[in-house]
Amino acid sequence: MDITQLGDRILSGDRRALARAITLVESRRADHRVDATELLERLARAGRQALRIGLSGTPGVGKSTFIESFGMMLVGQGLRVAVLAVDPSSARSGGSILGDKTRMERLSRESNAFIRPSPSQSHLGGVARRTREAVALCEAAGFDVVLIETVGVGQSETVVSELSDLFLLLLAPAGGDELQGVKRGIMEMADIILVNKADGPLKPVATRTCADYAGALRLLRKRPQDPEHFPKALTVSAVEEHGLAEAWAEMQALVEWRKAQGHWQDNRAAQARFWFGQEVRHALLARLETPQARAEMDRLATAAAVGDMTPASAAEQMLAYLKVN
Amino acid sequence: MDITQLGDRILSGDRRALARAITLVESRRADHRVDATELLERLARAGRQALRIGLSGTPGVGKSTFIESFGMMLVGQGLRVAVLAVDPSSARSGGSILGDKTRMERLSRESNAFIRPSPSQSHLGGVARRTREAVALCEAAGFDVVLIETVGVGQSETVVSELSDLFLLLLAPAGGDELQGVKRGIMEMADIILVNKADGPLKPVATRTCADYAGALRLLRKRPQDPEHFPKALTVSAVEEHGLAEAWAEMQALVEWRKAQGHWQDNRAAQARFWFGQEVRHALLARLETPQARAEMDRLATAAAVGDMTPASAAEQMLAYLKVN
Repeated sequence: MDITQLGDRILSGDRRALARAITLVESRRADHRVDATELLERLARAGRQALRIGLSGTPGVGKSTFIESFGMMLVGQGLRVAVLAVDPSSARSGGSILGDKTRMERLSRESNAFIRPSPSQSHLGGVARRTREAVALCEAAGFDVVLIETVGVGQSETVVSELSDLFLLLLAPAGGDELQGVKRGIMEMADIILVNKADGPLKPVATRTCADYAGALRLLRKRPQDPEHFPKALTVSAVEEHGLAEAWAEMQALVEWRKAQGHWQDNRAAQARFWFGQEVRHALLARLETPQARAEMDRLATAAAVGDMTPASAAEQMLAYLKVN
Repeated sequence: MDITQLGDRILSGDRRALARAITLVESRRADHRVDATELLERLARAGRQALRIGLSGTPGVGKSTFIESFGMMLVGQGLRVAVLAVDPSSARSGGSILGDKTRMERLSRESNAFIRPSPSQSHLGGVARRTREAVALCEAAGFDVVLIETVGVGQSETVVSELSDLFLLLLAPAGGDELQGVKRGIMEMADIILVNKADGPLKPVATRTCADYAGALRLLRKRPQDPEHFPKALTVSAVEEHGLAEAWAEMQALVEWRKAQGHWQDNRAAQARFWFGQEVRHALLARLETPQARAEMDRLATAAAVGDMTPASAAEQMLAYLKVN
């Protein structure tokens, strides 16, 4: 594969080249990894940055409809929009969110949009590391906004927040009791809570739910990276396309403030540090995953299990095998 | 240090030698680790095994009083009893449970008892790995029962269950609503739930609480390592020393059944496999913790943070530095 040529095509905004490059960074083959690292290094020199928006919400809150409506609005303003997914469930089921592009029928037909389903890797950590690189590829391809969707139970939100400049939590209208269903940790990650389905008979419930969450957010400690009145809760209707422009205006205001204060840059720097550490730790532990190392691990684990060796001695032998000591 | 001599003194039941050996396995010095590994390997050949009992309970349920009464009963039966602690809070506060031996005044004066507070290491993983080795030392020193105490929030219970042959959960009498306070995961780990303080005015509450938990336990899926009617809930009074003999009889019955079925041996083998894997992973990641490696990590993390390198390229340089590639 000619990495220089692939890089040039990505920089020119070629979506097929982008798709091919994402497949490259998702590959586990060692030679692909070498190519991927070279490509990313080359593209990073262009210094292009998109606004990275993390988006979380449980199934049924209308995430796909929101992304479709919100994405179409941004495209209508002349912006280029990429949509990626981090899906903890796909690791188990082999399925993936965004698997069905028809859920975003209009957006997927836009030349200024790019939609990529979640890779089905064996664990969340692997998915996340490669998604971070897919985000970098989208930035190099000139996208203005990269939406990173997740449906999660806490851990995937943490990962997505480490990939994002701002984090949206999409909720459905609900009675007061159901407020408790959102984990405090996820609420604390959110920069903006959007209560969707503020239309038709659900509109008054949505308004009440939004007020409830606004109240709950006021109880959280103010974060240094937030201006006054953030994090905040808003109502939207993805179906009727109400409130989307207001939500986008709030996002832009937040980003402008953070950029002016330096928080935006600090966050990106901290994220780069974090992912560097993750890459190093992952690569060290990956030495245990070769077929030969697995066989040796299994042999020594059995020796420890039957009592021929203590776990400590067996570990020492494994490290000697890996030539680490 | 003469490891052969230290080993012989431990095998003869010398408590001061045991205490010294536990300090040795808790040390982070590389030469101490070599000595510790050799000592453990030497002692393992003796093939001595104690009954390892994990014990969890939130502060205030009377864990110290229970260990004192239960331990005194066992000592009274001619058994030798060691008490160790895994304390996730000590990592943060620097304090430790069991720090005050006077909380177990009678037991600490018994020649057939040994009490060791929790080591204050930087993280739970480190504490757990060394506690596992302290348990092995107590076994070699001829103790019949090793009690491993923890006060936890889930994670430390998981660790202690990986160290134990059976797991006790000590609870205080409480109203029905408070039943929810015990995390499902911890309840699923318990082989026997003991509702303490079944004495004086709290006795009827304790009886009711015990019945509530017995009902909750019946709703859990039966585990293959359990005979009929396990896991079970019992009332005890550590202060009045009621119910302790009955609880001990249940523990022994459970252990006998598991030994007869092979579950006991399978569990020990699985634990040895688990700890072997933990030791290997820890040792690999420990390569990042030398002063030189930390400095290099920091230099490269900064390069990634300011954008001189992508995280992937920086990680590759770190691996080259560690001579891992």
